Amino acid sequence: MNYSIFCSKCGKEREEKTQWRCICGAPFDIALNIKFDKEKIIRSCKSIWRYKHYFPYVKRDKIITLGEGCTPITKLDDNLWIKLDYLMPTGSYKDRGSSTLVSSLCSESDIIKGLSEDSSGNAGASLAAYCARANIKLKVFVPKSTSGPKLSQIKAYGAEVFRVEGTREDVSKMAQRAMKDHLYVGHVWHPFFRDGIRTLLYEVAEQTGWRMFDKIYVPVSAGTLLLGVISGIKHLLSSDIINKVPRIIAVQTRQVSPLYHRMEKLSYVPPESIKTVADALVSTNPPLLDLMEKNLREVDGGSEVVDEEEIVSSYYALAKKGFHVEPSSAVTYAAYLKQLAKGGFSEKEKVLLILTGTGLKSPMKSFRNNKVLL
Amino acid sequence: MNYSIFCSKCGKEREEKTQWRCICGAPFDIALNIKFDKEKIIRSCKSIWRYKHYFPYVKRDKIITLGEGCTPITKLDDNLWIKLDYLMPTGSYKDRGSSTLVSSLCSESDIIKGLSEDSSGNAGASLAAYCARANIKLKVFVPKSTSGPKLSQIKAYGAEVFRVEGTREDVSKMAQRAMKDHLYVGHVWHPFFRDGIRTLLYEVAEQTGWRMFDKIYVPVSAGTLLLGVISGIKHLLSSDIINKVPRIIAVQTRQVSPLYHRMEKLSYVPPESIKTVADALVSTNPPLLDLMEKNLREVDGGSEVVDEEEIVSSYYALAKKGFHVEPSSAVTYAAYLKQLAKGGFSEKEKVLLILTGTGLKSPMKSFRNNKVLL
Repeated sequence: MNYSIFCSKCGKEREEKTQWRCICGAPFDIALNIKFDKEKIIRSCKSIWRYKHYFPYVKRDKIITLGEGCTPITKLDDNLWIKLDYLMPTGSYKDRGSSTLVSSLCSESDIIKGLSEDSSGNAGASLAAYCARANIKLKVFVPKSTSGPKLSQIKAYGAEVFRVEGTREDVSKMAQRAMKDHLYVGHVWHPFFRDGIRTLLYEVAEQTGWRMFDKIYVPVSAGTLLLGVISGIKHLLSSDIINKVPRIIAVQTRQVSPLYHRMEKLSYVPPESIKTVADALVSTNPPLLDLMEKNLREVDGGSEVVDEEEIVSSYYALAKKGFHVEPSSAVTYAAYLKQLAKGGFSEKEKVLLILTGTGLKSPMKSFRNNKVLL
Repeated sequence: MNYSIFCSKCGKEREEKTQWRCICGAPFDIALNIKFDKEKIIRSCKSIWRYKHYFPYVKRDKIITLGEGCTPITKLDDNLWIKLDYLMPTGSYKDRGSSTLVSSLCSESDIIKGLSEDSSGNAGASLAAYCARANIKLKVFVPKSTSGPKLSQIKAYGAEVFRVEGTREDVSKMAQRAMKDHLYVGHVWHPFFRDGIRTLLYEVAEQTGWRMFDKIYVPVSAGTLLLGVISGIKHLLSSDIINKVPRIIAVQTRQVSPLYHRMEKLSYVPPESIKTVADALVSTNPPLLDLMEKNLREVDGGSEVVDEEEIVSSYYALAKKGFHVEPSSAVTYAAYLKQLAKGGFSEKEKVLLILTGTGLKSPMKSFRNNKVLL
């Protein structure tokens, strides 16, 4: 077998295809036993499926694609580049994971009656699009705070939406409750979702001629992006495709910063309620936290937190340079500017920010209504 | 000189760089004296600038890019493909034209104090992004009916917005009034904008291995997309890169259908006020109408009109297949379904729909408020 699915904590292999986590309660991981080979890239394919060879659990005729991936990298400033990973079918990087998740599920089973998912909005919209493409019913559970455009988008694709009061974790619990004919495939938990994100790192490497940036800033909430990027780095490294590890900086908001606190060995007490413009970064108690810390330490990564004012000013600064992203993406620029101001960057250091969601999903007026900022 | 800019009606060459139309009142055209050569494509470049060689009036160090172009083509159904030209930096195909327009202006002049533009929304947002990138001030004139997300987007990029009562043509007139330090560069008129659209056709040809679709459905309002696509076809044809002309079907809404009426040799009387979900298709009296008719007849193209009900149902049908586009893009699918129902398609005919704007800019609630539909 050229891959295996096993528990990230106890090591036990997945037994049932319907399992979304180990019986011990910990998340699954996927081990890939195929070395990365540049010659195996399908160069005529302009989506993540140019790397099909590295997704052996997806059957070729079961690929569900909307043309995701192959997003541009553009120069923002001297030594500073941005990966526009919001130029995606549904406007967020999540389409990478949705495409691999739905393709994998279709590869493993011929009959899928229905799925259920929980999301702060972007993943729900993304999975709704791919389920629509595959003609699969979907129930999406979102926090009450999820913004208008994301809700309209999920509904446009024909998914059923449930708005849940409480924390992000409460939303998860609602979605996980066994429902007749609706298999839970929460994107945070499901290994086939998370595994799709490594295509982002393959693209970054390919687009830079297999050289690597010195530093990459990644927004972090539930951790799928961070873990996907690190998984891609490890795969290219162990395949001798790249020979240096970029320094990964995990960026969180001051209010929602469990990983930052872990990395800094501080205790984290989440606020009673979250009031942030970064409405995609709301996981105060992410189930992948242990995995994130372990992986980030393994690649000698760092972390940073940013305040609301820094996010808002970075959002505007990016837009004024021509890049209209959602505030949850602007945190990377905020963190970069913060660390740049502190000094310690070498002159030749090449930096990449990953921008993950389009600004069209979080229009400016929502700021004006946000009392925290006024 | 490997290009010339001349009047599409009287043939007179452009005399001043600030001219946006001929002194006779007709629009300019650009003639290119460079044959298309596949070897000249910059394959490492994943934007429209891979075709830089065919834009000789743009200086290499003056390119203003946000990573536009190289959008995917995806299969929708048997023999039916869609070009997702809304997967663009600002969510619409207009970014092709904005990139060539702003790059050209920067190539022709070192000092640009400010620009003015008129738009139903998408072009304004697009030009606002590229002006932001180039650090140029922009005034955008839009019709009063322009939807919320498009307005927020234009403002986010830092452009000044003026909402104008009256027809689409009234908006143009307002923008054209001489303003101190703000040169009018209306995207409908300016040859450097329209000329950028030919990159779309180059991509289609390249993505299909230089074979061509049998039929291409194009939404038509002011005509920049239609003329750009035909210009690309003519260039590839005269360069012996392709050997057949796809049948181009220009699609309009019943209410706004001046080109359809011209093609069918019927007289067109625009409605007193336009009430349509296709809010990007509102040019009842487009200045490029003569040019559109001439070009469409030259390539033996056709035209089609669709009703509001057809647009709405096609919008939902596309979304339920995973493609959330704005209603103004869904007209192409509506026209295809209409013609398919009429019969006359051969079994092997390969069809492409061009989808031009993201659904995130026209959320569903705007339909609910639209009395025409209830």
